[in-house]
Amino acid sequence: MSGGEFDRIARYFAPLANEAALGLTDDAAVWTPPAGTSLVLTVDQMVEGVHFLPDDPPDCVARKLLRRNLSDLAAMGAEPIGYLLTTALRADTPETWLADFADGLRLDQQKFGIALFGGDSTSTPGPVMTSVTMIGHVAPGLAWHRAGARAGDAVFVTGTIGDAVLGLEAARGKLADPTGYFRERRLLPEPRIGLRLASWVHAAIDVSDGLVQDLGHICENSGLGAEIEAALVPASVPARAAGEAWLETRLTGGDDYELVLAAPAGTEPALRAACAPVPITRIGVFTDSHRKIVVTDGHGVVMAFAHPGWQHF
Amino acid sequence: MSGGEFDRIARYFAPLANEAALGLTDDAAVWTPPAGTSLVLTVDQMVEGVHFLPDDPPDCVARKLLRRNLSDLAAMGAEPIGYLLTTALRADTPETWLADFADGLRLDQQKFGIALFGGDSTSTPGPVMTSVTMIGHVAPGLAWHRAGARAGDAVFVTGTIGDAVLGLEAARGKLADPTGYFRERRLLPEPRIGLRLASWVHAAIDVSDGLVQDLGHICENSGLGAEIEAALVPASVPARAAGEAWLETRLTGGDDYELVLAAPAGTEPALRAACAPVPITRIGVFTDSHRKIVVTDGHGVVMAFAHPGWQHF
Repeated sequence: MSGGEFDRIARYFAPLANEAALGLTDDAAVWTPPAGTSLVLTVDQMVEGVHFLPDDPPDCVARKLLRRNLSDLAAMGAEPIGYLLTTALRADTPETWLADFADGLRLDQQKFGIALFGGDSTSTPGPVMTSVTMIGHVAPGLAWHRAGARAGDAVFVTGTIGDAVLGLEAARGKLADPTGYFRERRLLPEPRIGLRLASWVHAAIDVSDGLVQDLGHICENSGLGAEIEAALVPASVPARAAGEAWLETRLTGGDDYELVLAAPAGTEPALRAACAPVPITRIGVFTDSHRKIVVTDGHGVVMAFAHPGWQHF
Repeated sequence: MSGGEFDRIARYFAPLANEAALGLTDDAAVWTPPAGTSLVLTVDQMVEGVHFLPDDPPDCVARKLLRRNLSDLAAMGAEPIGYLLTTALRADTPETWLADFADGLRLDQQKFGIALFGGDSTSTPGPVMTSVTMIGHVAPGLAWHRAGARAGDAVFVTGTIGDAVLGLEAARGKLADPTGYFRERRLLPEPRIGLRLASWVHAAIDVSDGLVQDLGHICENSGLGAEIEAALVPASVPARAAGEAWLETRLTGGDDYELVLAAPAGTEPALRAACAPVPITRIGVFTDSHRKIVVTDGHGVVMAFAHPGWQHF
């Protein structure tokens, strides 16, 4: 590392670190995990021009990076503890970018009760890149898996689906976004951490690659198919206002970070009560038609998708 | 992720994964750590053109990435367990690059007894980037820290110093490397995992940024200075053959991944016996001259360094 990197670590990251991080001055963090729990480990990266736009606010980039990882924990039914961070910045990345980025980390550390364990900073001649390895915990044996869904289970989703991809379309100038609602949903998804649903849920995944594709992952790993009704997939008020023309985009676009859950239909009232105020909606059923996902429109007609993600599956 | 990424994960990374990784098909790994130990956590990244050369063999890039992280654990006196991986490849990165990269991971997983917990793959328009978050363990309270050195402790180093930077100079055409020894030392450093020295060592660091600079980190964190004799700094046979002209380069160049240890001089026989067959050499002493590092040449003359790393300190 160069001297400048040491200075920046001391200025921006050391204040975010927990005791295990040893002030970020050692080779590694030392941490004794809580006894009697299983750890849940995940890593996600964000690349400028791929996962965020060059003019996205740096604090939002930081928060979305944390939230994508938090969402992976949420999809396992786990609670977050802390994280390790990498940053690769260009020589011309302004100091203010890093200051704002660290400020975003600080905000969401407080919001989600997590701390920085350690990290690595470097320079890059290419696009800015950053990654987070998130560590959480779950009671042994209670983690949700993609493989646990059963034929006859209902398909539930939290929140509303498709707002983030409409935010991307708005950023591309293809959709009006007068209130900035779609932009906000793209920049700052809400990871569904802390829902107390363990005893009802058979399988879960978070919607990162698009509802249909991610539902497909549960089906693939559980050896099932699924039938969902597009009209039941919850839409925000602005998404409804955008109209039916965006339906396929909403069903196949990524970055929502809502949860898809497999649970018996009879648990719906319990799920609804436990999730409140986060809405939870039943949109279909898991079937024993291995790997076959059927999406019907409001007229009962099976929809075909141009989007390749789920067709590959 | 695209369908191609799923295929590549299944082909190259799933065979490397342990049980906790759930076949790399879930959102996160679930792992119950060994009871009664502290975890040691570190992350390091490698950027094409910064940490490796575009034509470095991909298997060596993978192994060096693991070894840099293993070396961070070694510097804490910890044993490795497993790791999470990120890769960001260009659209034109050949499939063979990834296959060779995964092969390198496999080789060093076997050599060091570690497994893959999980990871994240993405594409990038920029240089290839890859990072590893390594997880290890240590008996509670026995981790070495940079802050533990005491005035009067001897400065010890493992192995030989400066071979890796001579490998870099050789790659730049500035130094002959007829046997390829320097290249090998640059591409495949030996992390000093598994040395049983806990009871003698007061502080440790691995040489990643250069001997003088990294010794400076122990001094800074311990509130000490140090005096070392350049003539005592162990050199490999090829480095000695390269001559005195390369002395400053060897003392300030990075990437050796040998350990610098602070321990009482009287422990030298015990350290030597415990490290064998890895050589360990006493090169100087820690002093109470806060932050002042004095390096004397073979004639007792204090050396001045043009390299900015340690002068910044």
